[in-house]
Amino acid sequence: MSLVVVGSVAFDTIETPWERRDKIVGGSCTYCSLAASFFTRPKIVAVVGRDFPQETIKLFKKRNIDIQGLEVRPGDTFHWVGRYGYDPNQRETVRTELNVFEDFKPTLPPGYRRADIVFLANIDPDLQGDVLSQIKKPKLVAMDTMNLWIESKPHSLLNVLDKVNIFFANDEEIRMLTNERNLIRAGKKILERGPFLVIVKKGEHGALVFGKNLIFGIMAHPCEDVIDPTGAGDSFAGGFLGYLDKVKSLSQREIRRAVVFGSVMASFTIEDFGIDRFRTLSLSEVKKRFLQFKKLVSF
Amino acid sequence: MSLVVVGSVAFDTIETPWERRDKIVGGSCTYCSLAASFFTRPKIVAVVGRDFPQETIKLFKKRNIDIQGLEVRPGDTFHWVGRYGYDPNQRETVRTELNVFEDFKPTLPPGYRRADIVFLANIDPDLQGDVLSQIKKPKLVAMDTMNLWIESKPHSLLNVLDKVNIFFANDEEIRMLTNERNLIRAGKKILERGPFLVIVKKGEHGALVFGKNLIFGIMAHPCEDVIDPTGAGDSFAGGFLGYLDKVKSLSQREIRRAVVFGSVMASFTIEDFGIDRFRTLSLSEVKKRFLQFKKLVSF
Repeated sequence: MSLVVVGSVAFDTIETPWERRDKIVGGSCTYCSLAASFFTRPKIVAVVGRDFPQETIKLFKKRNIDIQGLEVRPGDTFHWVGRYGYDPNQRETVRTELNVFEDFKPTLPPGYRRADIVFLANIDPDLQGDVLSQIKKPKLVAMDTMNLWIESKPHSLLNVLDKVNIFFANDEEIRMLTNERNLIRAGKKILERGPFLVIVKKGEHGALVFGKNLIFGIMAHPCEDVIDPTGAGDSFAGGFLGYLDKVKSLSQREIRRAVVFGSVMASFTIEDFGIDRFRTLSLSEVKKRFLQFKKLVSF
Repeated sequence: MSLVVVGSVAFDTIETPWERRDKIVGGSCTYCSLAASFFTRPKIVAVVGRDFPQETIKLFKKRNIDIQGLEVRPGDTFHWVGRYGYDPNQRETVRTELNVFEDFKPTLPPGYRRADIVFLANIDPDLQGDVLSQIKKPKLVAMDTMNLWIESKPHSLLNVLDKVNIFFANDEEIRMLTNERNLIRAGKKILERGPFLVIVKKGEHGALVFGKNLIFGIMAHPCEDVIDPTGAGDSFAGGFLGYLDKVKSLSQREIRRAVVFGSVMASFTIEDFGIDRFRTLSLSEVKKRFLQFKKLVSF
């Protein structure tokens, strides 16, 4: 199988109540592909400027990520400036500099067009739709989004939603999109539109998964020091889809295990700023934490 | 073994965004003992006025609850008036009429004084301490509390806390009491004071349990229609302690199972107004939902 991830490769400036980091590498595609690389060889689709650090390109290569679809353009890399409060579930966008992302119109390399799994990470839904149309008969399409697109481009977003199999969102986004406070009913509303799986990310409260004949919940890994929550959701998607790409199965058992591997990858991401935790993370640590999750919820 | 529950038997007037009910039976001791009655024979300590309905007394008897310690006094029963928003985790106290509860000084019946398990439900911590001092060498003491006492009687509350084995609180209360936002660190702070178990109730997000060598989490049962959240926490405590009283063990395995039975009982309570769900609930429904919880979290 193969996994294509389209999204942002970016700079983030992050302020938490304890620390601030300027222009560190981030982006939905970055987090997702790094997390997925522990299970499969993801192919990425994104654009960066000439200012993007070679050191991160090297990290992508070291993690065996296929960067054929990573365009390098004249200009500056996309830059997001955000701030977290004491509640890591709450974040505020201070500023967004689109830069080279502004007129990003991805053309997929030929080797990408027969991908089995596609992840449309959180970007403009029109771009998501455009990328999707370039892929021939994918077996599994997943998407993420954010409140910005729910508010500004609801029609485009629903258009993409109707074509995907798996919808990722956080609890507030899914409530906003469905106009339904109760998460179970909100999940059902999304299922009625076509996806066979809805994955609700609840930050420190874990994740809830709804399918036609499935309801599954997992706690978040208890973390005493959330250093930087950025990228947790994309790492979740990366662990989840990377694992499914590896096992080549969509059985309920593997979907449940994929959700746990998603939670595992998210739990590592928040232990350090930006993508730093991925620089040292090993597969044996990943497997060990999977077993810790088992212990956490077993009765 | 035997379980003594001290708390309130009361009238509640409840307003949700959808419906209002006037002066229906509620109270922490009521919910806790009804939930516990599915596992053991709880003995209750509380006071009511002459206006308290005989029909509820009959229900207590039918559920085999020992009401020797239920005083009936001249005057009116304690009455709480509360309001819920669209988020069932958020509630507001509109009014509290203490009535006969105002000068409640419980004297335990002799048959209660050798109880193995004591639950000090949410009442004035001075009363909790007073009841506790009347019990000879209990094997297990658990307490609950609320923001009102954390703010108004912190010294009395900590005094009781230092004498109990299990502390129940919701996430906001435990943060307030420990002045610690991170729940894991907040839990550890409570453990350092003496209890061997801290149970953090998170409403729709489930529960987290911290012990010396234990960390366990359980999702809430997915509920599409939360009719009335009142009493969920006390029903949780009742299911938890009732089960432990039945199995006569504090092994990690039984503690985990007790937490799940607590969640099971809470999940039934919120399906109807007040204590109405307990009128028809059967043990086979309780066991069936326990198995549903297994399915919900298994991977």
